[in-house]
Amino acid sequence: MNHLAKVAVIGFGTVGSGVAKLLQEQAPRLARRMGKQLVLAHVVDSDPKRLKSDILPPNILSTTVKPVLEDRETTLAIESLDDPEQAREIVLQLLEHGKDVVTANKLLLAEHGTELFERARELGRAISFGAAVAGGVPIVPAIAECLAANQIESIHAILNGTCNFILTQMEEHESEYASALAEAQQRGYADPNPIMDTGGHDAAQKLAILAQVAFGVRVPWRNIPRVGIDIVDLMDVHFAKELGYRIKLLAVAESLPDGLELHVSPTLVRRGMPLAEVSGVYNAVRIVGSAVGRVFFHGLGSGQMPIASAVLADAINTITGRAALTFPTLNLWPVEGETPLRLRDFAESSSRYYLRLNVEDRPGVIAEISGILSRHGISIASVIQHETEEESSNVVPLVIMTHVAQEGKMAAAMKLINQLSCVQTKGVRLRVRN
Amino acid sequence: MNHLAKVAVIGFGTVGSGVAKLLQEQAPRLARRMGKQLVLAHVVDSDPKRLKSDILPPNILSTTVKPVLEDRETTLAIESLDDPEQAREIVLQLLEHGKDVVTANKLLLAEHGTELFERARELGRAISFGAAVAGGVPIVPAIAECLAANQIESIHAILNGTCNFILTQMEEHESEYASALAEAQQRGYADPNPIMDTGGHDAAQKLAILAQVAFGVRVPWRNIPRVGIDIVDLMDVHFAKELGYRIKLLAVAESLPDGLELHVSPTLVRRGMPLAEVSGVYNAVRIVGSAVGRVFFHGLGSGQMPIASAVLADAINTITGRAALTFPTLNLWPVEGETPLRLRDFAESSSRYYLRLNVEDRPGVIAEISGILSRHGISIASVIQHETEEESSNVVPLVIMTHVAQEGKMAAAMKLINQLSCVQTKGVRLRVRN
Repeated sequence: MNHLAKVAVIGFGTVGSGVAKLLQEQAPRLARRMGKQLVLAHVVDSDPKRLKSDILPPNILSTTVKPVLEDRETTLAIESLDDPEQAREIVLQLLEHGKDVVTANKLLLAEHGTELFERARELGRAISFGAAVAGGVPIVPAIAECLAANQIESIHAILNGTCNFILTQMEEHESEYASALAEAQQRGYADPNPIMDTGGHDAAQKLAILAQVAFGVRVPWRNIPRVGIDIVDLMDVHFAKELGYRIKLLAVAESLPDGLELHVSPTLVRRGMPLAEVSGVYNAVRIVGSAVGRVFFHGLGSGQMPIASAVLADAINTITGRAALTFPTLNLWPVEGETPLRLRDFAESSSRYYLRLNVEDRPGVIAEISGILSRHGISIASVIQHETEEESSNVVPLVIMTHVAQEGKMAAAMKLINQLSCVQTKGVRLRVRN
Repeated sequence: MNHLAKVAVIGFGTVGSGVAKLLQEQAPRLARRMGKQLVLAHVVDSDPKRLKSDILPPNILSTTVKPVLEDRETTLAIESLDDPEQAREIVLQLLEHGKDVVTANKLLLAEHGTELFERARELGRAISFGAAVAGGVPIVPAIAECLAANQIESIHAILNGTCNFILTQMEEHESEYASALAEAQQRGYADPNPIMDTGGHDAAQKLAILAQVAFGVRVPWRNIPRVGIDIVDLMDVHFAKELGYRIKLLAVAESLPDGLELHVSPTLVRRGMPLAEVSGVYNAVRIVGSAVGRVFFHGLGSGQMPIASAVLADAINTITGRAALTFPTLNLWPVEGETPLRLRDFAESSSRYYLRLNVEDRPGVIAEISGILSRHGISIASVIQHETEEESSNVVPLVIMTHVAQEGKMAAAMKLINQLSCVQTKGVRLRVRN
């Protein structure tokens, strides 16, 4: 019966159950189009409680992957496990048993992608992972296929919906950071321990995957310089607004003459620019290609059904045979005749900067600070210091926008500025994108 | 030598020469990735003057398609002819001779797509046409592959860069329509006879293609209701701004319970919505899918290299074998077991409306107009009538924003309003999108 395409779903949490639901719902329509009937042949979860479902026939349920490995007719497995170590082991087993794999597990790929991709290639299998970056936004296939005739020049992306939700709450509802985070946790957007999101780690993991697909570099995600949004105060959101900007956590990959620059940074983005207009849990990616110019994608990067949409698209690509053709052509391994791009030292990176310092309200303060900046070759574009209303307050925020400066010099200057007696708490430094 | 993939470019105008340039420039990089060397084996143009090129070896040039048809090693032809009738004949010949075809020719597809697609399918060949809609924005592959697990619910798109440029000029530079159009012509964005763009015909042709890919309907583009931007006055741009909107030429396909609604209409789009922020010659497409939710794409819809980028992506898809797998699964022909969507009568369509009437400045005018609207069941949301500065002027613009009303009733009411003695010139009626 080669008109049946038997599929296993491994891990039956939010993503796995969404995929199973969508697969069953869309199977008749897809069968008419593809001439192949997608059949959910196995659902695996080590927790039997998760397998209680009204919509699944009991004979396809299992707490181990064994029935999948043994079923030679099931050639595709959709992996959606929580634990990347367990996922790694199971994906390796699946590949060894001749299954193609679809995964939305960005942590699995960020930690073990190189090993898994190499193994799949050796075994003539395909791993598809469109849902691992930006969820429902088809950015991986866009880079790998639709923009294949381009050399990618740069990627600027909002890849973490939780951070974007928090920053949007702060701006639209005047929420302090802590209460915006609590709201995100209450809605299920942020974990009880939110540091993977707010610290920029999740965005760095996704950026590592994008950088591999777009530039052929293999960068351990922990090596990507990153600043989280936890340094952003409501005051910064207000000053950004006053200056005509919004604060967004940007993941950046940029090919420059002396190497590839990668970083994740909370950044002031000028209002009216597409990235500045991305609100709530949405993700967005701005790509510049050598032929196509600027292309911008915007959609939901998380959520059960957007992820299921991307996972099932990969499953369809695998069943039709497209994934087998695409996978070997991806930038996932070194290619003979190509020198991998050098990673640029982040200290060499340059940007305009926003500085917010809490300073004593006395003469000479601006002179001291601007003196340090000047000695580091950093020139000031504008300064905001409002008159204070409370007469008692002796500490006021001072905001400085610089012209383009080098990251390394800026960091050195900031260190000295933070040591000044007139500077009361550690200053906030954000990048600025016009 | 199956490591060589020989390609013909037929029609050596702007698109054809851009494709040839990009193909030659990217061939070494693509060869390393794909394991196949793309080779430009034939360049055809009936005008020998166009074939004078420093970058092309003379032995690949021809004024007829004969050498391509006779070369069995050349299995892919990129068609970029100006005349759709000539293109139709040549594409049929190419298919008969076993060539796959890539085209960016939306007029060819709008006029002869059904015939060509059927013929290609009979012959086991593939036609790829990603560049025919929205140019460098990969909207056709996004719908056909990345969103394959979704039922498409709606498409709202800016598909004509010339119109968007004119409307942007009017807003940003306070240009009158005629001078904005002249500017577009001077920059080469608009033809000397611009009616295909400004009348909404080009957008309707592209919408017909998108509707086929997304909804499986075959609609002759001439049957798509359309209003051009030539009815938009600078005054309307100003009023839209005052009301918090921008005017955009939207191509709309929406699946509703009683059928598919298709139209092209200049529309007030609320500022801050992604479609409202699309400026200049850019294109954009907002899609809602049943699983993925809202996804938004933005990029250059025209221009030599963006089009070449999309054409070469299709060529790569064909060479790798992906196009052969994708083409038969597209919504290009009726499928057994599926009833084609009914096309909804445009008179049943509903929207909020912006009306701008030039009326006599005398008592009772608003009462007469609002009486007609009321008798058609149309309720008024807001009215703007500014005090006139010129005392001599007896005619003033009156702007009415309605609540949601039916197109048919609105058209009937407008006909009566235009007959009122107090209404001096034909009123302007635009749709409104919140």
